[in-house]
Amino acid sequence: MNTKKILISNDDGINAKGISVLIKIAREFGQVLVVAPDGARSGMSNAITVETPVRLKQVLNENNLQSYSCTGTPVDCIKLAFDKLLDQKPDLILSGINHGSNSSVSVHYSGTMGAAIEGCIHEVASIGFSLCDYRPDADFSEAEPYIRKIIEKTLENGLPTGTCLNVNIPKGKPNGIEVCRQGHGRWVEEFDERTDPQRRKYYWITGFYQNMDNGMTDTDNHFLETGKVSVVPIKIDMTNHEFLEKLRSWEM
Amino acid sequence: MNTKKILISNDDGINAKGISVLIKIAREFGQVLVVAPDGARSGMSNAITVETPVRLKQVLNENNLQSYSCTGTPVDCIKLAFDKLLDQKPDLILSGINHGSNSSVSVHYSGTMGAAIEGCIHEVASIGFSLCDYRPDADFSEAEPYIRKIIEKTLENGLPTGTCLNVNIPKGKPNGIEVCRQGHGRWVEEFDERTDPQRRKYYWITGFYQNMDNGMTDTDNHFLETGKVSVVPIKIDMTNHEFLEKLRSWEM
Repeated sequence: MNTKKILISNDDGINAKGISVLIKIAREFGQVLVVAPDGARSGMSNAITVETPVRLKQVLNENNLQSYSCTGTPVDCIKLAFDKLLDQKPDLILSGINHGSNSSVSVHYSGTMGAAIEGCIHEVASIGFSLCDYRPDADFSEAEPYIRKIIEKTLENGLPTGTCLNVNIPKGKPNGIEVCRQGHGRWVEEFDERTDPQRRKYYWITGFYQNMDNGMTDTDNHFLETGKVSVVPIKIDMTNHEFLEKLRSWEM
Repeated sequence: MNTKKILISNDDGINAKGISVLIKIAREFGQVLVVAPDGARSGMSNAITVETPVRLKQVLNENNLQSYSCTGTPVDCIKLAFDKLLDQKPDLILSGINHGSNSSVSVHYSGTMGAAIEGCIHEVASIGFSLCDYRPDADFSEAEPYIRKIIEKTLENGLPTGTCLNVNIPKGKPNGIEVCRQGHGRWVEEFDERTDPQRRKYYWITGFYQNMDNGMTDTDNHFLETGKVSVVPIKIDMTNHEFLEKLRSWEM
């Protein structure tokens, strides 16, 4: 079992606690290559760096673990790994463990899921893991057996081309795993307005999540609230296929 | 007809030629609010700015046109407009016109589509427009009637909640509009490696698009190649619903 090749990234940066836990678990399965941002890249989504160049720096070279930090985004990390560091496709790409939830619509903003989606575009089984606790010293110990289980099952079964997994783990001891859909909701922003010493205004992003599922119980948000680990299969193809025919009837 | 409220953003920045064309067309339909990045934000996807604050600056206040530049990402622009500038929901959110294609898998990296997807999350009919010509002085004149037509039809019919449009326009004179699905493919990166004066390596992202549709002709890429404007309905819900049952059978 410990012969797999696993590529790891995240968006909290290579020194975050979450990625160290993920690396520890991944090493049980085989050889690990880490390419992760050199600092925080939260909310970077699938962004790529085009306006500036990026740099790579090797930070660790052990028996079954090689680590690189990168000045770019999580997606840059995956792309650089494929182009410059990997001599063959890895068996698995893991991203996280994110400090903070990436359930529901947050899948669109998450740099953690950005890396997983990029892995999926490269046709490698990819999983993004997030713990619903944003604190730097969050306790990942109760999450570990669930992460191990989901990695085992993914290696055993594989994933369909163009589909990756968005795994969110509640704070504390989870009471099981639920496969479910992405919740429907949005972030309502309340930008915090401040004034700098030159009397110019500036804004910090802040806000709250508005659940728009009207009591539906088949969503990641619902299961997280009941203490379950949520597993949502995420598709690269964003086409609304059901709407194609209606849209054609517009006769443009 | 010229009574609509329209919010506009892009990812090439407020001074790009593409957004000026889109503003000109939008003003025919009503009152326009522009909130766009103060410079290039290509490849910013759905990124939000969380590590630094953002600033807004009014740059124009005319009869039916207000313009603001923003130091943040395209998604920040839409979020700030909703929180700080709009007193009611706009009738329409437009993004672009992007200098360069955003067809197929590029929908995931595109800041232009990031803004459109954000508009869609806010439950406003949203459209991202891109011209398959990345040059700063690209000629948008042949695209104009198609953009006008798609805006008219969208205002007339509305869009389903959670669905926006990804519109790509070929270079030159298009020969019609095709509603279709997102093409299947990926960017193969070939990072350009250079050495700085301190003899440290750095990398510029570059690469080519690899079509993985094996001759299928129902895709945006195919129709663009045949000179058509492609219109892909894009969903916020990324769940692979068809895979849920199989994934449940893993018995995690």
